[in-house]
Amino acid sequence: MPRADFAFSHRLRVRWAEVDRQGIVFNGNYLLYFDVGITEYWRALGFPYPDGILEYGTDLFVKKAALEYHAPAVYDDELDVLVRLARIGRSSLRFLLELHRADTPLVSGELIYVNADPATRSAVPVPGFLREAMQRFERIAPEAA
Amino acid sequence: MPRADFAFSHRLRVRWAEVDRQGIVFNGNYLLYFDVGITEYWRALGFPYPDGILEYGTDLFVKKAALEYHAPAVYDDELDVLVRLARIGRSSLRFLLELHRADTPLVSGELIYVNADPATRSAVPVPGFLREAMQRFERIAPEAA
Amino acid sequence: MPRADFAFSHRLRVRWAEVDRQGIVFNGNYLLYFDVGITEYWRALGFPYPDGILEYGTDLFVKKAALEYHAPAVYDDELDVLVRLARIGRSSLRFLLELHRADTPLVSGELIYVNADPATRSAVPVPGFLREAMQRFERIAPEAA
Amino acid sequence: MPRADFAFSHRLRVRWAEVDRQGIVFNGNYLLYFDVGITEYWRALGFPYPDGILEYGTDLFVKKAALEYHAPAVYDDELDVLVRLARIGRSSLRFLLELHRADTPLVSGELIYVNADPATRSAVPVPGFLREAMQRFERIAPEAA
Repeated sequence: MPRADFAFSHRLRVRWAEVDRQGIVFNGNYLLYFDVGITEYWRALGFPYPDGILEYGTDLFVKKAALEYHAPAVYDDELDVLVRLARIGRSSLRFLLELHRADTPLVSGELIYVNADPATRSAVPVPGFLREAMQRFERIAPEAA
Repeated sequence: MPRADFAFSHRLRVRWAEVDRQGIVFNGNYLLYFDVGITEYWRALGFPYPDGILEYGTDLFVKKAALEYHAPAVYDDELDVLVRLARIGRSSLRFLLELHRADTPLVSGELIYVNADPATRSAVPVPGFLREAMQRFERIAPEAA
Repeated sequence: MPRADFAFSHRLRVRWAEVDRQGIVFNGNYLLYFDVGITEYWRALGFPYPDGILEYGTDLFVKKAALEYHAPAVYDDELDVLVRLARIGRSSLRFLLELHRADTPLVSGELIYVNADPATRSAVPVPGFLREAMQRFERIAPEAA
Repeated sequence: MPRADFAFSHRLRVRWAEVDRQGIVFNGNYLLYFDVGITEYWRALGFPYPDGILEYGTDLFVKKAALEYHAPAVYDDELDVLVRLARIGRSSLRFLLELHRADTPLVSGELIYVNADPATRSAVPVPGFLREAMQRFERIAPEAA
């Protein structure tokens, strides 16, 4: 997707310890970058994870992750983690993510979170205030969300 | 899938540093466990990665990864990484993986690798000897592979 | 130190993701291996960390770490983490550790832990039962401990 | 040491995956932060690691590391990695490092590198141009270096 389709982006730099013997980022470390992107997304939204969400009695757990590797990131690359909330379900959130080096997409993927009771980890509806904040941030029309 | 559907399994133990503040394994670390499982799969097959493959002028790069999180693994868990080669394409390999604690599946997923020229990283056909070794190991009938 | 000077040893294998672009284990990952060694030491002692210690109202925090790198470990190496409790202070424990590939010491180091109240993290005396168990395990004469 | 004693500082933020079940950064991850600090030190010096050094036929390997843990860093902390070159030996470099949250030092330590031939990994003298650049950057009088 073009960069303009993403409401949010966060820049990071590839660390020495994240690169493997092939000279490229180890495939699992992209989920580390996605996680940093999601963290900064929540901060930008005004609900820094986890305290900004836990105080409303709700927490988020990853349910699914998918990644497609187009081209490798290498040591010292400056990368943009692009984050877009694609769907707000009754108790789930679906994020699309892309990792770009300048205008080259290297990795694309998605993360599906379930909104859950922190103690029981069973799904509960996404709180209304969070739903509205995300719709505003993403400029999603309420009926389409 | 039942454990019996997997030709290969490797046991590991969750380390302190792999567990996060929620007391569960960080979502990206399951790709670390999958990678260990694939490494041991190649060893069991008789072609330890990477030297056992590179010497034939071919290398493997992850093209896609997908994970579904059913239940969390916690610190000190003994886990079995179950690995099954589900499809041998012209230049790609599709593995199914599951992570079990005793008989409870915690995470399931897949990894798709492309067989590539180590220098150019462009796809090349899976070598015949590798294809045959994998078919034997997985007891896949050649026509179905 | 010769291997015979260590009461305890634990074997592990270097993972792909732990090796960097120089083809050797990233310097910080040896503390990961030391931590695994200490974890298994506590298990062998009969007090699996952390529950076996926390139930007595005491916890352990690393106060100092030191490492000396003699020769690099590489991908797929089988390594022995050798652990020896060198000193039991009033509220501290000093461990000596070495990482060997066969009979070659690759890394040597020490970890100093403080025994602390889990809530306040302030130092408290090492409980007597732990002190005695460690002296027995290490065959340290009580007066020398 | 007071912050003013350090010629260089780099800010980073603690990631979710770097924090353990005690809610604090895993002790080995501070070497990851030290490594990021050293990387940025080389960049600021004008010799980005490793290409800016390798092109002169020399490389750097960690020989010793030491850490003292004063207080834990927690998730989402903004930390400054303070780096100071304390000694330039014939073929070795000794760095002092501190990790601060605002004006509170959390971890202090040192890293000793050996300057080596990239192929043989045997020690070779620190090149003159590097020695001079570092003396200028640190404002070390040549005779004291």
